Formats: sequence, structure tokens, C-alpha cells
Amino acid sequence: MEAITIDDVRAVAPALAKYTEDAIVNGLWKRSALSARDRSIITVSALVAGERTIGFAHYFNTALATGVTPAELSEIVTQVAFYAGWSTAFSAVAVLKDIFAQRGIAADQLPPVAPELLTPQQALPGDDARVSILQETFGAIVPGLVEITNDLLYGEVWLRPNLSVHDRNLATVTALIATGQTEFLGMYLAKAAAVGVTKAEISELITHLAFYIGWPAALSAAVVAKGVFEGHGLPK
Amino acid sequence: MEAITIDDVRAVAPALAKYTEDAIVNGLWKRSALSARDRSIITVSALVAGERTIGFAHYFNTALATGVTPAELSEIVTQVAFYAGWSTAFSAVAVLKDIFAQRGIAADQLPPVAPELLTPQQALPGDDARVSILQETFGAIVPGLVEITNDLLYGEVWLRPNLSVHDRNLATVTALIATGQTEFLGMYLAKAAAVGVTKAEISELITHLAFYIGWPAALSAAVVAKGVFEGHGLPK
Amino acid sequence: MEAITIDDVRAVAPALAKYTEDAIVNGLWKRSALSARDRSIITVSALVAGERTIGFAHYFNTALATGVTPAELSEIVTQVAFYAGWSTAFSAVAVLKDIFAQRGIAADQLPPVAPELLTPQQALPGDDARVSILQETFGAIVPGLVEITNDLLYGEVWLRPNLSVHDRNLATVTALIATGQTEFLGMYLAKAAAVGVTKAEISELITHLAFYIGWPAALSAAVVAKGVFEGHGLPK
Repeated sequence: MEAITIDDVRAVAPALAKYTEDAIVNGLWKRSALSARDRSIITVSALVAGERTIGFAHYFNTALATGVTPAELSEIVTQVAFYAGWSTAFSAVAVLKDIFAQRGIAADQLPPVAPELLTPQQALPGDDARVSILQETFGAIVPGLVEITNDLLYGEVWLRPNLSVHDRNLATVTALIATGQTEFLGMYLAKAAAVGVTKAEISELITHLAFYIGWPAALSAAVVAKGVFEGHGLPK
Repeated sequence: MEAITIDDVRAVAPALAKYTEDAIVNGLWKRSALSARDRSIITVSALVAGERTIGFAHYFNTALATGVTPAELSEIVTQVAFYAGWSTAFSAVAVLKDIFAQRGIAADQLPPVAPELLTPQQALPGDDARVSILQETFGAIVPGLVEITNDLLYGEVWLRPNLSVHDRNLATVTALIATGQTEFLGMYLAKAAAVGVTKAEISELITHLAFYIGWPAALSAAVVAKGVFEGHGLPK
Repeated sequence: MEAITIDDVRAVAPALAKYTEDAIVNGLWKRSALSARDRSIITVSALVAGERTIGFAHYFNTALATGVTPAELSEIVTQVAFYAGWSTAFSAVAVLKDIFAQRGIAADQLPPVAPELLTPQQALPGDDARVSILQETFGAIVPGLVEITNDLLYGEVWLRPNLSVHDRNLATVTALIATGQTEFLGMYLAKAAAVGVTKAEISELITHLAFYIGWPAALSAAVVAKGVFEGHGLPK
């Protein structure tokens, strides 16, 4: 989809243009609770997961400008494929391939197909619980999917070293929130906390997302986060 | 995305073309329970909130033809930005800017950035409850978002006079339903009732939306509406 | 949206390209639990229902190549219109009309507007329960929608003979899962079972969908399927 400019916004909705400048560009992005680099990871993950294509080019370029590497963008797209569906990732590829080509970003700057993987202890501390739950809850109903989940998603993708464990968790939590998938969000928030993602980061991630996915989806995520942070146990 | 014609539909699915003509154009839109103008507001809000771009041009023009003013369309887009995310509004801008340009609609027909605002009593009767709930439920978990919600969304956007309070509620309820956000829908239905939106209007709004967002999403909204109308209190 | 190639994917995310080839093309689609034709029906239904347009051309052609007829594709698009909204079907029409034109597929290969309908006993065994629930739950709240549901959706669309009852159920269950509409999914799984769709088919349908709509949406569907299959009654 064609990109639009702030003047296009002003030609349709002058107040919306002002809110974009004051509340998002000069407001949200300047809040110190998250770095511009982290906001880029979150924004890109949300837009890709929701196939919100109109902002793709702008925010892929913003990500590269705020310190997200091409290799990290590549890994985010791959991670989101699993959490929001293959076509969301392919829609991102349709735009990123041109950005990479224009900037001369070639294979040597991209993550290899088969890097040396992290250990489960490094990438997935406390993952025994996930394996048990997956087997007990889903083993009898979708055994094929459980096998693929263990072998490919958790046995390989989550162990790839080309995106930090911290950032892979940010991208995944964001993809869940951006697609309205709150059923397992509590489990993923606990998982993120286990690798050092802080409550303050999650709080600001949700605040940031309100503008990109809408208030109701953000507040639904806040309800789940509240339950997890207040120690009421996981909602699921 | 390119527009399609009814003949295109017929070339793929003749029955679907017939249902479009009989059940929607000559059926749904002729039902007296809502005016064509109200149906336009609802349809536009649903399509924009769901980024269902293929119908944008057709229904933006239908809205203008049935009495929705450019200023009102502009406000609907702005309101939906907050409830379904900024990119939904920007996707609408991408199409509306051309329609406005073709019709010679310029800044003097658009709402100003900073109009004289309605009072909370006019636009948000009973809003004390919302402020309390927001603070109690979300104050500790996402304080930044609560502040922005009070200052910008309820302190400014909801008080803008360029869309009637009635129509702003129709647009907001529709955006929630069209994005599958039923968690807070009960609260918004009660809010709409407080400014005079009737049960008959909500009933027909849901019936209308079934064709545009699908039966299951419409029936899920009906479940919530039933609870609110039968006085079982708000589900949330 | 423009189509992309596997080389485009490789130019952005080499690992994602490898997973596409190994896990999807040579993995998932080769699993014997569902035929390639059934996988085509499921994939097309999921992509159309979610307006995941980037894969439309590829998978419409795959469907035709694996034995789904133009008439069946036409009916799937019509069925999904009701379950995911008219614009999802119209987005499919925008791509299918060109594919049909290129292949010389004309009206004589498409389902007629008014074929001789199946009887409710043939297409909708056990439908009395649905009629009662619809009337009791929704009769007072959205009487107009209940009438249209009985007359048009169940009185005509579900009785059309141009897609087998089995396949119409696959398409519908898929549309519900792909749009995250789990509230009534249990009812539709029971309905599918009543016409002979097996637990093994549903299990593999969910496994298949994980790649196309993402893991969380597929696992949410598995939770509902588990409840239905284990006889805990319908969640709704």
C-alpha cells in the first residue's frame, strides 16, 4: 500500500495530524521508559503481526535508523511468522526486500540458516513447565502440532542467537498482544520475566502499543499483565 | 487495493452477487430501523477499524452521498485511530485524501485542530465511573497509559464537537465490535445508552454489521448486548 | 499486493525460506492425515477469512491444481462472506476474477444462483438445536438478524449443493479459527462431527493452520476442540 505523509493526514484530519506529531512523534517516542531501539522492535513486531502494511516502510527504516540491525529485523520477521502466521511475515518480506536491496544489505549481513544455537538453559529458562503443559493439554488432541512445536519452534527458532533472548521475548509478547491473542499471554509474560524483561518495560510496551493497535487491545493486555504482576498466577 | 464491480463478483460467485444485491443493497440498507446516514457511519467505522480496504472508496462516497459531512468523516477516522490503532486511520487517509481532493474539499470544510470543546457533562455523562475504574484497575499497571487516556482521549478527543455525541458513540461501539474487542464492549454500550443511543439502534447496528464483519463477530456482540439490556450488569 | 518468491524470502530471512521449504512445502503438505485437496480448501478458507491477501494467487492456483473445482472455490468464497464479512470475499474476488479469466473459466463452470437445494436433513442434521438456541438466545435482542440467519444463511446458503456438506463444514470451521472466533467454535465442531468430519481431520486441520494463522490462534482452537472431543460439552 502506498505510503502517506503527515500532510496527507492533515488534508483529511488536521487534529489527527497534530496528535500524531504531539502525542506520538514528540510524546510517546521521547518517553524514557523505553529506548527508541526497543520502541522500534515493538512497533515493527506489532505492525508485522497485524499485517498493518501502511506503516511498514516507515518503521522498517526507523528501526534501522535507531540501531536495530538487518539481522535482527530478519529474525523478528521469522519469529512473528510462527506467532501470527506465515503471510504476515511474507507481507513484511515484500517491503523489506526492497529496503535491503536499496541499502545494499546482502546475505553476509543476514543471520545464517543454521547458526550455532543457544542452549535451552540460555534461551528458555524454566521451559520444563511449558513442555509439560504442552504435552498434557495438547498431546492427545494435536500430537502433530505438539511435535512440530517442540522440534522446530522451541527446539530451533527460540534458540537462534541472532536476536537477543530479551528482544525475542519483546517481539513475541508484542505479536500476541497485537493479534489479540490474550489466552496464552500470561504464560509469555512470565516467560519474558524469567529472562529479565521488567515490569516497567511491559508497562511501557503496552502504553506504546495503545497508539498502534488501539486502546481496547492494549487495555486487554494490561488486564492480563496485572494478573501476572500481582501474583494471582497465570490466567491460563 | 483496486475496487471491484458487481460484475466482477458475478464472474466468480453469481450467488454472492445476488445476495449482495438482494440482501444488502435492496434489503439491509432499506430497513427502516436505521437511516442510510447512520448505516454509512456504522459501515465506514467498521471497515476502517478492520482495515477492510477494498470497500473504502465505495463506502466513503456512499457516506458523503447519504449526508455524512466531510468534517464528520474526518472525526470518525480520528476517533477510530484511538480505538483500532493509528494505521487503520492512516489507511483510510490514503483513500480519503484523493476523494476529498477530487471533490474540492479543503481545510475550511474540515474540523479545526482545536475547536471549543464540549463539556464532560455534555459528551460524557456518568464518566466519573469510568475515571474511577480506569484508575483502580489500570493505575498501578500502566500509569502512563492512564494519564494519556484521561488527558488526550477523554480530555480532548471525546469532547470534540465536530461529530455529534450520538454518532461518536455509534462509531466507537462499531469499532469495538468490528475488531472483536468485546471485553469492554458492555461498558461502551452502557455509555452509548447514557447519551440516548437506543436498544433498537444497537440491535440494528449489530444486524447491519453481520454482513460486513461476519456472523460470528456480530453474534458475539449480541451476547454482550443481551447481558447489558437485560440488566445483568456489565460483563466487565 | 504483489506476490513474492522464495528467493525474496531468502533475501530477507534465509532461515524463514528454509522453514517454508522444509516444514511447510515438503513437511506439512506431505503429511498423510489430510489430502492436498483438503489442505487447499483449508488454506484458501483461512487466507480469505483473514484477508491475508499476499498468498491469494498462489493458493487459489494450488487449489485448482489439487482438485478443487472453480465451482467449489466460488462456493467457499460465498460461504466465507457470511462467516468473516463481505469484504473478505470481495478481496478474494479481486484476485480470483483474473485467475478465472486467464483460465477461460466462465459462467458454465460456476454454481448457478438458484440450484436445487439440499434438504436440511442432508446438509444440517441435528439443526433443530441450533434453531432453538438461536431463537432463545438472540430472538429478543437481534430479531432481524435471527430472521436473516434462518431464511438466508441456513435456509439457503448452507443447503447449496455445489460444495459438499463435508467441505462446507471444513471451510466454516476454518473461517472461525482463522478469525479468532472461538466463542461458537464448539458448536460448529459438533456440527461438523454430525456430518462425518472426524477428530483426526480436525486435529490435522488445526496443525495445518498453525503455520498460516500462527501458533496461538491454532492452540486456542485446540483448547476448544479438546473440550468437545472429551465430551465436556460445548464451551458455549
